[in-house]
Amino acid sequence: MLAFNEQGLVPCIVQDGGSREVLMMAWMSRKSLDATFACGELVFWSRSRKELWHKGLTSGNTQKLLELRYDCDGDALLALVEPAGPACHTGERSCFFRELEGPHGL
Amino acid sequence: MLAFNEQGLVPCIVQDGGSREVLMMAWMSRKSLDATFACGELVFWSRSRKELWHKGLTSGNTQKLLELRYDCDGDALLALVEPAGPACHTGERSCFFRELEGPHGL
Repeated sequence: MLAFNEQGLVPCIVQDGGSREVLMMAWMSRKSLDATFACGELVFWSRSRKELWHKGLTSGNTQKLLELRYDCDGDALLALVEPAGPACHTGERSCFFRELEGPHGL
Repeated sequence: MLAFNEQGLVPCIVQDGGSREVLMMAWMSRKSLDATFACGELVFWSRSRKELWHKGLTSGNTQKLLELRYDCDGDALLALVEPAGPACHTGERSCFFRELEGPHGL
């Protein structure tokens, strides 16, 4: 039903279930998805560290799973969450805190 | 500033700027990003057809760009849009119309 990519991953969009703000995007493997359902908080696959990444386990900024949705072709997830703190490592509430002003901003 | 992947693509989350509903996720190349800024409507890269994909050009369900954001590590985009119609080819307003009930739902 889910279409994991050639690395066995699927992107997961994280949205605040209350404010509806999009907080971040990260990747999930089948194992991280199982872990997410098991503990009720978002667990991703860290592509840089190549290990399971229980979001907020160190910082305290966990994301409680409210609802998990998947798209029409099964290759993207949308997690509605209740965040315990900022999603971004910079301290911003959302990782998407910067605007691209146009092609010259690239 | 943007970190395109090894295929020269970056995922783009599409959110309704009014209702804040997450509508879909698709991929952008540098060319599709240029085209998006040039025409003011979302233009993706179709990975299956391997061509630029001006969303809604056939169906009429275009997505007018209101604001384009990028995340802290530059490897994901968030487009706030005003949609002219449903985002999904099924006719649903959002592609994320199904809920994953648990690991057994996979």
